Amino acid sequence: MTDFAATKAMFHLPEGVLYLDGNSLGPLPKAAAAKVQKMLTEEWGRMLITGWNKAGWMGMPTDLGDRIGRLIGAAPGTVVVGDTLSIKVYQAVASALELNPGRKVVLSDNGNFPSDLYMADGLLRSLGEEYELRVVDPEAVAEHITDEIAVLMLTEVDYRTGRRHDMKALTDLAHARGVITVWDLAHSAGAIPVDLAGCNADFAVGCTYKYLNGGPGAPAFIYVAPKWADTARPALSGWLGHEAPFAFDLDYRPGAGIERMRVGTPPVIQMTALAAAMDIWDMADMDDVRAKSIALTEQFIQQVEATCPDLELASPRAPAMRGSQVSFRFADGYAVMQALIARGVIGDFRAPDIMRFGFTPLYIDEGDVTRAVEILTDIMQNRLWDKPEFKIRQRVT
Amino acid sequence: MTDFAATKAMFHLPEGVLYLDGNSLGPLPKAAAAKVQKMLTEEWGRMLITGWNKAGWMGMPTDLGDRIGRLIGAAPGTVVVGDTLSIKVYQAVASALELNPGRKVVLSDNGNFPSDLYMADGLLRSLGEEYELRVVDPEAVAEHITDEIAVLMLTEVDYRTGRRHDMKALTDLAHARGVITVWDLAHSAGAIPVDLAGCNADFAVGCTYKYLNGGPGAPAFIYVAPKWADTARPALSGWLGHEAPFAFDLDYRPGAGIERMRVGTPPVIQMTALAAAMDIWDMADMDDVRAKSIALTEQFIQQVEATCPDLELASPRAPAMRGSQVSFRFADGYAVMQALIARGVIGDFRAPDIMRFGFTPLYIDEGDVTRAVEILTDIMQNRLWDKPEFKIRQRVT
Repeated sequence: MTDFAATKAMFHLPEGVLYLDGNSLGPLPKAAAAKVQKMLTEEWGRMLITGWNKAGWMGMPTDLGDRIGRLIGAAPGTVVVGDTLSIKVYQAVASALELNPGRKVVLSDNGNFPSDLYMADGLLRSLGEEYELRVVDPEAVAEHITDEIAVLMLTEVDYRTGRRHDMKALTDLAHARGVITVWDLAHSAGAIPVDLAGCNADFAVGCTYKYLNGGPGAPAFIYVAPKWADTARPALSGWLGHEAPFAFDLDYRPGAGIERMRVGTPPVIQMTALAAAMDIWDMADMDDVRAKSIALTEQFIQQVEATCPDLELASPRAPAMRGSQVSFRFADGYAVMQALIARGVIGDFRAPDIMRFGFTPLYIDEGDVTRAVEILTDIMQNRLWDKPEFKIRQRVT
Repeated sequence: MTDFAATKAMFHLPEGVLYLDGNSLGPLPKAAAAKVQKMLTEEWGRMLITGWNKAGWMGMPTDLGDRIGRLIGAAPGTVVVGDTLSIKVYQAVASALELNPGRKVVLSDNGNFPSDLYMADGLLRSLGEEYELRVVDPEAVAEHITDEIAVLMLTEVDYRTGRRHDMKALTDLAHARGVITVWDLAHSAGAIPVDLAGCNADFAVGCTYKYLNGGPGAPAFIYVAPKWADTARPALSGWLGHEAPFAFDLDYRPGAGIERMRVGTPPVIQMTALAAAMDIWDMADMDDVRAKSIALTEQFIQQVEATCPDLELASPRAPAMRGSQVSFRFADGYAVMQALIARGVIGDFRAPDIMRFGFTPLYIDEGDVTRAVEILTDIMQNRLWDKPEFKIRQRVT
């Protein structure tokens, strides 16, 4: 049984803040600062270039990949860390397309994170006019999975509403039509149990700075199913994905398995912070995390609906149909969110009217939810959001 | 006049080490540890998601780009930091190719860093069989710049020998033939004065963990000439290169100028370490750096040739023809380098027989060179390298 009081104690959570935005950027693991400090002074500082071998920097992308793999149903040796999520989306879609020659359409939905659509669009424009990115409503994805489709590219959990796709059913349907799947786990990894192997997923990608708490700009990850690992051609064929990077051959030969999805020199300092976060994840069982996540989101929905009737639930009501966030619609949601932030309740806002609240059992508990709802209720019932200073739009990530 | 004693004092240089491998990984700026610590605890820890605006994280890629720009002859607003060098090579070559429609050949040389060739090869394979990566000898590049070539992709300074291409002459020749240029400055930025604007270069890329001392896995940079900045299409079209990233539109619209070359969420922790390194660079003038670099490399060559006749100079003899490193060939160079490292002289080795020594005036001085040569001379004259423990090959970056 996961000890959530113990995991909560391992995060730095500022006094007076109820942080319900771990779905955007997870908080600082207390151990991260010391771990990074040590890496800087004792590894980079003392070992200099030899740190790549002596300190194990070169192996971090696959070491961290394996640790993330445990949370997403991926066997050791099938996940590697590196680059940004957008780059990994490009790499996965480019590889998947080539494994399905003759088909020219990538299918996605308009609930996908825009950058996934932008990256696929950029790739397909490079490949030529015969390629098409087809974007449909999330509810219409299944009916659009035809034998015309080369690649199905979906984000499992919608970044705005938390609506969850049925990964197993859609993957099965895709395979029945000869379609290769690319799943974006940005709002899944560390949020809900994922079973990539059990779903027979082909490719998956995700980021580590949201639920995984790797820090701002933490690297992304990519999963390649064993059946494709030695045949997928990485379009982004960098030297660290080469079979023998330090032979400095002029010709590219892809490395074995997941290693070929490495590209350039990995970000050691970011990976060190991520490793501190994964130390906490090593204490957690995803089924426990999911059970508590459901309890927290159910509590939040019930309490908010009881006291804030003007807010309309934008997330699916059935817990099984959503990730680990809850969104409410309100025309002045932007101002409400600013009023909440001013009171220490940190969620975020997505245009035109969605207030998002992320629930992260590693450091959020029932008392936090109750206090957050009390503040939200005060703001709503007394229209405390209706002030000019809360209506000035600022860029928010 | 640059105060090199002052800059040297700003680096952590381990006792007993003469570090001549700053061309692979620069040393730790003393201020980096505190600066990163502060970013972790006071920014990520306290500001959480609001750090993107409050702490200025979102602007770091262009802020750092401008600071690097000063060292490479690039105007403010023409350089942005992010991703790895391999990714930036891909992005530059893909963009350049599209700006030269109708031509299908990328010309490079076999002295280029292999990852540049791998990335270009990966891109061209994606685009189709009609595309070709043509790799010639460095000396033969000029004669191969014909009106068949779409893009000339070269690394200015050879990573093995330090041989330097004539960027201005080759760029002029390329333009006369309607060829667009992509220059890799991995061994140029912070090593030699570069005048991208004066050379009329089209695209340039580089890394920040070598001479710039940004730390292991520090992000890369990309330069786009103003004439292309608003027409280049980033094949890697990520959300942070979008005109309005936080509008979350479904369609990609490239941002203005260099901003469009941003892709995903930038690595804030790595950028913070890089910023500490750039604080030192702000104290330096590249002409002073070059003058001292030439003095140090000339001193090294003269002293080594006087006392180690078995070593054959692999770098150009004329200082103007080389970067800031000196390479010597020796059949047992690997063992010699291991013997040097065991004595605290850190250079590196590139197969089959090249010993590389990087000279970095910010923290290496005449006395260091003299001591390094004394140790090398002892090792060579007394065959101290001829021991089994120095002949076991390990992977070295």
